[in-house]
Amino acid sequence: MSLLIKNATLLSGKKADILIEGSLISEISPSITARADEKIDANGKIALPGMVNTHTHAAMTLFRGIGEDATLHDWLAAVRAVEVKVTPAQIHAGTSLAVAEMIKGGTTCFNDMYFHMDEVAAAVQESGMRAVLGYSMVDMGDAGKRKSELKIAEQFIKDWQGKADGRITTSVPPHSLYLCSRELLVASEAMSKKYKVPLHIHLSETRKEVFDCLSSHKLRPVPYLDSLGLLTHRTVAAHCVWLTKEEVKMLASRGVSASLNPVSNMKLAGGAIAPLPEMQEAKMNVSLGTDGSASNDSLSMFETMKFLALTVKNARWDATAATAPQILAAATEGGARALGMNAGALAEGKLADIILIDARAPNMAPLHNVTANLVYSAHAGNVTDSIINGKVVMRERKLLTLDEEKVVESAQKEAEKLTA
Amino acid sequence: MSLLIKNATLLSGKKADILIEGSLISEISPSITARADEKIDANGKIALPGMVNTHTHAAMTLFRGIGEDATLHDWLAAVRAVEVKVTPAQIHAGTSLAVAEMIKGGTTCFNDMYFHMDEVAAAVQESGMRAVLGYSMVDMGDAGKRKSELKIAEQFIKDWQGKADGRITTSVPPHSLYLCSRELLVASEAMSKKYKVPLHIHLSETRKEVFDCLSSHKLRPVPYLDSLGLLTHRTVAAHCVWLTKEEVKMLASRGVSASLNPVSNMKLAGGAIAPLPEMQEAKMNVSLGTDGSASNDSLSMFETMKFLALTVKNARWDATAATAPQILAAATEGGARALGMNAGALAEGKLADIILIDARAPNMAPLHNVTANLVYSAHAGNVTDSIINGKVVMRERKLLTLDEEKVVESAQKEAEKLTA
Repeated sequence: MSLLIKNATLLSGKKADILIEGSLISEISPSITARADEKIDANGKIALPGMVNTHTHAAMTLFRGIGEDATLHDWLAAVRAVEVKVTPAQIHAGTSLAVAEMIKGGTTCFNDMYFHMDEVAAAVQESGMRAVLGYSMVDMGDAGKRKSELKIAEQFIKDWQGKADGRITTSVPPHSLYLCSRELLVASEAMSKKYKVPLHIHLSETRKEVFDCLSSHKLRPVPYLDSLGLLTHRTVAAHCVWLTKEEVKMLASRGVSASLNPVSNMKLAGGAIAPLPEMQEAKMNVSLGTDGSASNDSLSMFETMKFLALTVKNARWDATAATAPQILAAATEGGARALGMNAGALAEGKLADIILIDARAPNMAPLHNVTANLVYSAHAGNVTDSIINGKVVMRERKLLTLDEEKVVESAQKEAEKLTA
Repeated sequence: MSLLIKNATLLSGKKADILIEGSLISEISPSITARADEKIDANGKIALPGMVNTHTHAAMTLFRGIGEDATLHDWLAAVRAVEVKVTPAQIHAGTSLAVAEMIKGGTTCFNDMYFHMDEVAAAVQESGMRAVLGYSMVDMGDAGKRKSELKIAEQFIKDWQGKADGRITTSVPPHSLYLCSRELLVASEAMSKKYKVPLHIHLSETRKEVFDCLSSHKLRPVPYLDSLGLLTHRTVAAHCVWLTKEEVKMLASRGVSASLNPVSNMKLAGGAIAPLPEMQEAKMNVSLGTDGSASNDSLSMFETMKFLALTVKNARWDATAATAPQILAAATEGGARALGMNAGALAEGKLADIILIDARAPNMAPLHNVTANLVYSAHAGNVTDSIINGKVVMRERKLLTLDEEKVVESAQKEAEKLTA
């Protein structure tokens, strides 16, 4: 299979053709005349590497709108009340809904940790989406539970690594330092090393986490994880907001990638703004995530980009403290790097995960600065086409791999059962 | 002309029919069987009063992407460099682009202050949009300039008040206390009183404004304006971020409406978060604005709602400090109240400014909480239909009153001339 995208506008403002062969980009140049099985005219559209959402709990779309405007305690209680009831079929329905939303919003890969992950993987397989999936482990210090959690997580890796033409890869996700014992954390790192897959963990999301860690382990979260050997180039640390400068330097020096989730942090009123300037200074790899829909309540990476840039600017009283090129890079190549993936850039030899954005929508004109318009003016509805692994999954906003109406209907039905 | 909207979902989650006769809503009830000239099936759609954007400089869409990620000084210089060159034709093109973007994003009325306002009004007249327009006055203490500014502003009111079937009304906008003399401010209030139209002014947007006011007038901005009699129920004060609690109480007691512009404030790194909880406590009328595209760079009121709610929650470390119903009310009825307009609510006798939102888009499902989904999950692309003054101006995302392609093309061409 080959696919030729003609006349796409690049970030530079210049136009180019993009040739895809199989799952890879094989050529980008001003005019490609090669024959291709399929052709897309991208005149008036911006071509961008698909966005990589590095922290999700996709199936939580079913809880969108539950526990709104509540304290963290009440929100947790409201979410837990439905989460304990969730069936595998509901996880499937919620994931399909999330994938539909993500594709329509320009995301081509997501990094997910949750449970009933076989259903998550099945939903991803059907959808044409790319994802890094892992079973989220929690032991609360219980040795029996630990053993069974590790078994489920490892079995999932064995069953799904590299499946769906390579679109599905796996990770090892111990939930967090407060829900996982020292032993579980250490065993997780061993598993991540053994299978050469990312270790995905929540880190320094709330002040409480920091204080509790200090109280339990006499160390702040980053040095505590470091003391267990958990900080490596395979680590994707979600949130990373309550950090000291020294912790940022430590994370950077170990090659850890941050997944910043500003919208979720703000919605839950955590109080912090990510130390992005310090991360950039330390040359830490930064990527972006939305978190689950229960705490956001959107999976739009465009929204996440603008929130991160503007909150950092405002918090530092410095409009140069975060720039559009930095933020767009975090949403694309930073995400791919975090997941160890050959994607996140429009370049020959990279995975053909590409989105097209309507540059002629009123909110995207004029095009003085393509990158700034993408970060500060675009919304999820401006994405017209999406190509994942060389295959067109959305064309002129119509999903080709999923029946959008059915996906929404089924999710709505399952969601209603949860609150009935 | 009559228009019947069938099966619309209301904020309560219940369905209703809405009958429009002429420019007004004449009936809302579970099932209306009356005949109407036109019918819209709103099954699967949420009906909402159109959003009211209470602070814009619409034509600045032409500068979108200019002066990005720059200090306030460099940004001002970059914008001024193009602003001084702007022609009346360019103001027209930029306003048409803004109106197209606003209609597509669910805004049905905007409150604009800028220059070459006859062109702004002409663009609004053609578009089917509702707007409150005023010539932005600046005298810098020059008596001659003051006289001519007041003359232009008054002539504009005489020429345009009530035009376009009542869609265009006018305002008196002295720019700010730092670009207007005491005499100009006092004369502005007299004009606002004479014509019974809003007085629209920038207020307490930056720390510098506060310090300079203290230094020049020995008063903070709010007491200074109060000493000149500028604070009345006709006053729409844009920004209102650098305020003391006493100033909030003073604004509230005078009946002033705030227009909060969180996205613009954050993009320019002003450093403040609006004192929304204090405003709510003082029962001050709060409305929302986007400001111009040079400092946002979007005119989406959906985005503005989410930014305001989340920044307030996060700044106060309290997820209950701003709620979806409060924020949605500010974007609709708060805006109408600020402008003294019989709109902003779906109720019999109100102006028929109504938008429909796709409740079946993947990012809007499930519908556990309609209001929360509108504030936290929706984006501008979810708006499907727009009715202004009883007339359908957008149907299934197609603009009926403007030629979208031409508007975008013309704006792009004019914008390129500006930077050539």
